[in-house]
Amino acid sequence: MQIPPRFERVLHKARIARLATVDSKSRPHLIPVVFVFCNDLFYLPIDHKSKRARPEKLKRVRNIQQNSNVALLIDRYSENWKELFYILIQGKASILGNKYLTNHEKSLSHNFHILLREKYKQYEKIGVGEYIIMIKPQKAITWSNV
Amino acid sequence: MQIPPRFERVLHKARIARLATVDSKSRPHLIPVVFVFCNDLFYLPIDHKSKRARPEKLKRVRNIQQNSNVALLIDRYSENWKELFYILIQGKASILGNKYLTNHEKSLSHNFHILLREKYKQYEKIGVGEYIIMIKPQKAITWSNV
Repeated sequence: MQIPPRFERVLHKARIARLATVDSKSRPHLIPVVFVFCNDLFYLPIDHKSKRARPEKLKRVRNIQQNSNVALLIDRYSENWKELFYILIQGKASILGNKYLTNHEKSLSHNFHILLREKYKQYEKIGVGEYIIMIKPQKAITWSNV
Repeated sequence: MQIPPRFERVLHKARIARLATVDSKSRPHLIPVVFVFCNDLFYLPIDHKSKRARPEKLKRVRNIQQNSNVALLIDRYSENWKELFYILIQGKASILGNKYLTNHEKSLSHNFHILLREKYKQYEKIGVGEYIIMIKPQKAITWSNV
């Protein structure tokens, strides 16, 4: 699906989102994530903050491998509740690694790394991990309090 | 389970959390929520921002009625990534309404309304809905970047 153009600016500007995945027993898992939005797809780096855990052992990765349904939430909180809003994206996630990528995926991965470093200067110091979560939106729900 | 005391202050102070629920097809749903944390339980008002939708039609309510597994995330974003942290609560949710409550639940509901108005002055003007989501934590995961 195509994200309605009026949300694009918000999605490009947002610094953080929350990602929900579901395990094999239908229990949700939820974490804050940084992301890049490009050509109607969302890209999330994996495990950039810590090298302790191997990416394939991360709960979000194991969940996506078993169940590709995910939800991504971009919202704004303010003490003035007239300013509250959120965009909820529901879609299908897949894991892109460095190995076994098609040429198309390699090109997506390359663009992602450039966009990620542009959006988050923090990556100049810490480097980007080799795995990426790619989310293809199927549904977008928006809510605002006005 | 008891929440480790070192997290209690963060949980009491946090103004917003994100709630993930799961539908009957194992697809996650995710929204920002206000909440009160009291005696190791989390309480979330339902539908306080809009009277348009009947509470029992809300996706989060229907999901919880079909699958009580939920995740609640309290996190902090900062451009200084050394300050990032999150607390992920996984647990079981139930819906408390005004009808058919046991005396114990009535007392919980009464306390919740007092605490909610104390924490969020916004409720002085808009009033609190009659339904509450109560979450009993089963697991707490914390992460910080230090």
